[in-house]
Amino acid sequence: MSDPTRLTVAVLGGTGPQGRGLARRWAAAGVPVVIGSRSAERAEQTAALLAEATRGRITGATNADAAAGADLVVVAVPWDGHAALLTELAPVLEGKVVVDCVNPLGFDAQGAYALPVVEGSAAQQAAGILTGSTVVAAFHHLSAALLEDPAIERFDTDVLVLGEDRAATDLVQDLAAAIPGVRGVYGGRLRNAHQVEALTANLISVNRRYKAHAGVRVTDI
Amino acid sequence: MSDPTRLTVAVLGGTGPQGRGLARRWAAAGVPVVIGSRSAERAEQTAALLAEATRGRITGATNADAAAGADLVVVAVPWDGHAALLTELAPVLEGKVVVDCVNPLGFDAQGAYALPVVEGSAAQQAAGILTGSTVVAAFHHLSAALLEDPAIERFDTDVLVLGEDRAATDLVQDLAAAIPGVRGVYGGRLRNAHQVEALTANLISVNRRYKAHAGVRVTDI
Repeated sequence: MSDPTRLTVAVLGGTGPQGRGLARRWAAAGVPVVIGSRSAERAEQTAALLAEATRGRITGATNADAAAGADLVVVAVPWDGHAALLTELAPVLEGKVVVDCVNPLGFDAQGAYALPVVEGSAAQQAAGILTGSTVVAAFHHLSAALLEDPAIERFDTDVLVLGEDRAATDLVQDLAAAIPGVRGVYGGRLRNAHQVEALTANLISVNRRYKAHAGVRVTDI
Repeated sequence: MSDPTRLTVAVLGGTGPQGRGLARRWAAAGVPVVIGSRSAERAEQTAALLAEATRGRITGATNADAAAGADLVVVAVPWDGHAALLTELAPVLEGKVVVDCVNPLGFDAQGAYALPVVEGSAAQQAAGILTGSTVVAAFHHLSAALLEDPAIERFDTDVLVLGEDRAATDLVQDLAAAIPGVRGVYGGRLRNAHQVEALTANLISVNRRYKAHAGVRVTDI
């Protein structure tokens, strides 16, 4: 098992709830984290807000600077700007493990639904753009509300980790396991990422019906 | 909570492993089950093989006769013949709850993958054909190997139940809960069925990696 605290992790879109929540949990677990944002100032402000909870292990930078300085880069940007940002950062991301946790979802009066993605999934879109990077899909189902809630100390959920490269998926499973209670579970190749991303729409339906912050555990493993 | 033992359940395609396994478990729980098949003789043979384990609560018939005599009809046929069978049986299925548990998957050297479905999902295809029935999607992730294994007495898994009609999804949740250890969890509308069906491909990847019969539990509910 690798030691994720020896990595520097960049979280692109780290000023949004999902990215901010992941950054907080990793930094609290001892992982040095750089929050990336379009605006360095906004990223630094978010890092400052989290400084106390994370013993100063979070800094802020532009998405490009955050990516450049990291060993592993987590993409937690809105689906809207996903392709444009990755295209812009492709040279900086070369040679790195890039973890896509973007859920292409639409919302209407009936709740959430999966948006069609030409490439199949956000992760496959990322892999098509970042041909010099190793793309992994993970962290789709972790509730941002729980990640950001300081009262929550342990999570009861697995993180499905998908990708083609065993060393990279193993590493990301370890990064998942750095969050207390979370287990990283290999979940298949990127061609099967769409349904993992889209399942977030079902979890939103579950949350609405049961007044919960639903997660997923894989049984019998 | 309704009492599923007061229903007669037909399992179309009940001579295949998934249908046979579900039929066995429901009958063992006290639910009268009719196994349907293209051939009445094959259906009766399968019912006879299961008679001892299920105290004779299983009978066999053609798919059409099984459907005609049932209150609730489970569709567990191969994806290949799905549209044709439902089109043929649409008049018989009118007014009934039809539970689709079909996973449109392809297989190659790299494992399983989700097949594209013009209607979005097998369940939506069923709903488009069976305009006089109430279609529910459920029972996608239960391992046929475990369902058929007489040594397994309890399951550690949830069944996601999707549909538009609350009474019907409630009923199917109860039918899921008739299998020991299983919980039926509402999982959203049929427009979000694709990813639930397709997730079976990921569970097959999990099974291969971890030598398991993986299932899914929803947490925080």
